[in-house]
Amino acid sequence: MYRTHTCGELRISHAGINVTLAGWVQTIRKFGSITFVDLRDRYGITQLLFGEELNQQLESNPLGREYVIQVSGTVNERSSKNANIPTGAIEIAVQSFVILNKSAVPPFTIQDETDGGDDLRMKYRFLDLRRNTVKRNIELRYAVNRAARNFLHANGFMDIETPFLIKSTPEGARDFVVPSRMNPGQFYALPQSPQTFKQLLMVSGYDRYYQVVKCFRDEDLRADRQPEFTQIDCEMAFVEQEDILNMFEGMIKSIFKEVKGIDYTETVERMTWEDAMWQYGNDKPDIRFGMEICNLKFPAHTFPSKSGYEQLINGVDFKVFDEAETVVAIAVPGCSEYTRKQTDELTEWVKRPQIGMKGLVFIKCNEDGTFKSSVDKFYSEEKLKAIADVSGAKSGDLILILAGTEERTRKAMSELRLDLGERLGLRKKDEFKLLWVLDFPLFEYAEEENRWVARHHPFTSPKPSQIETMIQNNPVIEDAANYLKHPYANIKANAYDMVLNGNEIGGGSIRIYQRELQEKMFLALGMDAEEQQHKFGFLLGAFEYGAPPHGGIAFGFDRLCALMGGSESIRDFIAFPKNNSGRDVMLDAPSSIDQKQLDELQIRLHLK
Amino acid sequence: MYRTHTCGELRISHAGINVTLAGWVQTIRKFGSITFVDLRDRYGITQLLFGEELNQQLESNPLGREYVIQVSGTVNERSSKNANIPTGAIEIAVQSFVILNKSAVPPFTIQDETDGGDDLRMKYRFLDLRRNTVKRNIELRYAVNRAARNFLHANGFMDIETPFLIKSTPEGARDFVVPSRMNPGQFYALPQSPQTFKQLLMVSGYDRYYQVVKCFRDEDLRADRQPEFTQIDCEMAFVEQEDILNMFEGMIKSIFKEVKGIDYTETVERMTWEDAMWQYGNDKPDIRFGMEICNLKFPAHTFPSKSGYEQLINGVDFKVFDEAETVVAIAVPGCSEYTRKQTDELTEWVKRPQIGMKGLVFIKCNEDGTFKSSVDKFYSEEKLKAIADVSGAKSGDLILILAGTEERTRKAMSELRLDLGERLGLRKKDEFKLLWVLDFPLFEYAEEENRWVARHHPFTSPKPSQIETMIQNNPVIEDAANYLKHPYANIKANAYDMVLNGNEIGGGSIRIYQRELQEKMFLALGMDAEEQQHKFGFLLGAFEYGAPPHGGIAFGFDRLCALMGGSESIRDFIAFPKNNSGRDVMLDAPSSIDQKQLDELQIRLHLK
Repeated sequence: MYRTHTCGELRISHAGINVTLAGWVQTIRKFGSITFVDLRDRYGITQLLFGEELNQQLESNPLGREYVIQVSGTVNERSSKNANIPTGAIEIAVQSFVILNKSAVPPFTIQDETDGGDDLRMKYRFLDLRRNTVKRNIELRYAVNRAARNFLHANGFMDIETPFLIKSTPEGARDFVVPSRMNPGQFYALPQSPQTFKQLLMVSGYDRYYQVVKCFRDEDLRADRQPEFTQIDCEMAFVEQEDILNMFEGMIKSIFKEVKGIDYTETVERMTWEDAMWQYGNDKPDIRFGMEICNLKFPAHTFPSKSGYEQLINGVDFKVFDEAETVVAIAVPGCSEYTRKQTDELTEWVKRPQIGMKGLVFIKCNEDGTFKSSVDKFYSEEKLKAIADVSGAKSGDLILILAGTEERTRKAMSELRLDLGERLGLRKKDEFKLLWVLDFPLFEYAEEENRWVARHHPFTSPKPSQIETMIQNNPVIEDAANYLKHPYANIKANAYDMVLNGNEIGGGSIRIYQRELQEKMFLALGMDAEEQQHKFGFLLGAFEYGAPPHGGIAFGFDRLCALMGGSESIRDFIAFPKNNSGRDVMLDAPSSIDQKQLDELQIRLHLK
Repeated sequence: MYRTHTCGELRISHAGINVTLAGWVQTIRKFGSITFVDLRDRYGITQLLFGEELNQQLESNPLGREYVIQVSGTVNERSSKNANIPTGAIEIAVQSFVILNKSAVPPFTIQDETDGGDDLRMKYRFLDLRRNTVKRNIELRYAVNRAARNFLHANGFMDIETPFLIKSTPEGARDFVVPSRMNPGQFYALPQSPQTFKQLLMVSGYDRYYQVVKCFRDEDLRADRQPEFTQIDCEMAFVEQEDILNMFEGMIKSIFKEVKGIDYTETVERMTWEDAMWQYGNDKPDIRFGMEICNLKFPAHTFPSKSGYEQLINGVDFKVFDEAETVVAIAVPGCSEYTRKQTDELTEWVKRPQIGMKGLVFIKCNEDGTFKSSVDKFYSEEKLKAIADVSGAKSGDLILILAGTEERTRKAMSELRLDLGERLGLRKKDEFKLLWVLDFPLFEYAEEENRWVARHHPFTSPKPSQIETMIQNNPVIEDAANYLKHPYANIKANAYDMVLNGNEIGGGSIRIYQRELQEKMFLALGMDAEEQQHKFGFLLGAFEYGAPPHGGIAFGFDRLCALMGGSESIRDFIAFPKNNSGRDVMLDAPSSIDQKQLDELQIRLHLK
């Protein structure tokens, strides 16, 4: 061993003993004939004092930033202590030292606030990983991993490894494929998730399974997506939705406790997908703050108690609202005194192409009880008051209203709400709010192909009460224009998402375990019997030999770690991430391979 | 939840309570108007009693093997208890039941001794996994995983995930490659091990790393090799070989204790590679039994105390021995009375093509002190006694002697020794003997290319005392015939293998951490500066910024589990293994993929 202690462990109680440390030179400060060096390792920083007698040696063997050295000496109490670091009470009076390895001058500073840009830090990721801020993320990731495993182990789950070289069954996302040299012309695929394997394990009777496992999706990368990512993947047999919600609520709370020391004692709120879409404009609401969306055309959609308001905004000949499919409002607390400049800025914000609205209507609910709006010529004070009541606005609030098609308008209002939450400091980094979103639609409609697609995945069960609807009806959509009238349009999935601070951190479902229902599902997705057999014959077969009821969930481990660490960028929480083009710029991968490798695989490039 | 208890937990103390169980029907036994059913789940078996009143229902809804049912009833004390199972004191008087899912008749019996052949069980792996014998293996695997993680965590190691989509740098084994759609014409490779990443983590200062991680090698599969396999992969910084040996000896002992309840208190034996090769004929000796090999031509090679025996077997005009490069013997204990038939059989055994010897010489060391050999006409009684002395044979032993070229003869003797150990019951399944093999040669000679290849891998350091030899000499072999005289031929690696009962379970080394030495190593392996930069530029670069001394080890997790489970077949310890052609016969993978997928990847098949 090159050391007797780490750079983080020596205290005043060690004073007087001889120690050997090894680590990296963080800083060098010369004061006349003595030199102070801060020595760094994974565990902390310890101050070294090179006295006069070692100066000669230091001159012939000068140290530099990031040199790796080994020093021996005595632990001494410092005269001027540094209360900011745990070792700040002591220093090492160095008696001898060895330079274990030199270092070139790093391309950026190894400090919390570095001068290195993104690209440079990615190329030299091994240096970036030395920075405290990055190290804390990697440590947090391990802590989350460990806490999850401990909870799952304590609850009888078993880590069972599933294969990485599997069969390509592209559903939704593209598979990465791996040519097989021993089976020329054939390919393995890398798993998008261990979904079918964990279901088979349930059929096999291993009723509580988990894995912290890499998954792969060959998608066009958006910012903060990685082609390989990690899931905490879990499955249970003999359970219903309620059992899963309780179990995994417990897991996340246990992680909060172990990793962050947070007692998340309150019950996790639950919300239907329908409510989430109408009250927050998206299916992963950030409920750290209110500002719920109010549907001004059909307020009862949002608040069942507020019926009878259908004429709230209609009937005053304001065409923008009259003609809009959807008119929605939020009440922004305490912003009634926004200036013209500020409301103009908001209007510009919603008119940006990413948001795509034509304009923004506002109503200022003045502190004195009066109202001032951008639509005063259409709406009387009385009408404005009624709108304010319905929107839940109080004196001092600013009501913002958007109008347009349902999907776009809800989405725009969701963005606007989040942006204002951010501006008003309502999205606190150190506040954590969990939410279960439930009762998703089982299907979405694919217009181009005039068929159903699975909203979650093809193995998700409908609500038990709707299984008959699914079995008894023909999934074919005869009348494309009225697809919403097809009985399948109203089937809800037995599925659930866990949302943390407006981000989906986990999702799952109760699975189909009956062959007949699974076949019906595949058929609804446009897969005929032959294709079903080719792609999923093993699963359909398994369902014939005593498949138990089962369900599960998968957590996005990268995202969970990022959110726990107060960041929304997963890349900072992955030791060796890829960039937005799916490249590892440190390795320079992917790269060309030898002709010999291509020949052995019996494939050729065919570049466009 | 479909159950209140599992099928393994009810005891006499539960008598009288109402319970609900769910599981699989193991057996059905009818006795007149009552029916006994054994219900099975992951945790055990519970006997169900369907009384007269339920018979009607059972007749209209008959049960079958492997049906999934849910039953409610009362826990009753059994009149005739079954002491063989933990729940044997009770049974459930069923009050109601539901068939959750039916089962077709399984293609083989779900019992410890099944009637299913290998292929059938692989195709229906999900049923095979239900068998107790397989389940115990999977549970043992999880226990080993957990024990390893607990030990490593307690010792300050961090699980840090390394990427799966990396760069192809084929060294030795072939890479599996993954075409990149977003970078047409370029490929990722799947990692053969996280070797370079864990070294980078050491450069980054994460001084204790581990991972239980999938690795991939596209090799022609031998029996019991898998294209994807799992390693317990570890690395430490600021350590020397001794530190690694102590740490991981501790890990394996801790696994033995936690998983098998075995206190492995003795220090793990250590042996040089040279000794292993001469005394056991291979580099992973099974030291559960003796029968060490004796080198009759140069006994001092094996036993330094036995010098001066050079004329032991020469000089009697027995050409077979005189002309052989190597003559080796083992003394088989207590077999001096082997019949002619038995010695003939041994002779035939060594003459099989797999062993490839021309014949076998034996000397019977009779109990009365006389000798009888197959070479009596060449060797006097006195000579035979001398040979017996040198071979360590006692009265009653049978000495077996092989002669031929060094490599083949040692290997043949190793096989013969193991075979006899097996026959004599000396390789006990429940005995575990660990061994460190040390001081491997750093290089092997590649005749075709007249250059060096790394015996372990290119990142292994030579012994510290031999670094200068490596740096100062030109690796080029000028005189191919005398390659053994090249200074590199005698360089020993700072490497170590852990052997358990004659199987390598782990191997590792102290790594090179100096750029100059690493470049010299690559050069010795025939890699010029350009190729070095292309393949390993990132690592050479990293060594310029303060790389600490470091080393590590990787354990073959599949093999370790198999050996702990008393088996030598890793396949039985993998949930979803591939067959010897690398196929998953359950999934039917690999398989053809759509033309659309090929087009998107811009590759084409080019089948021979």
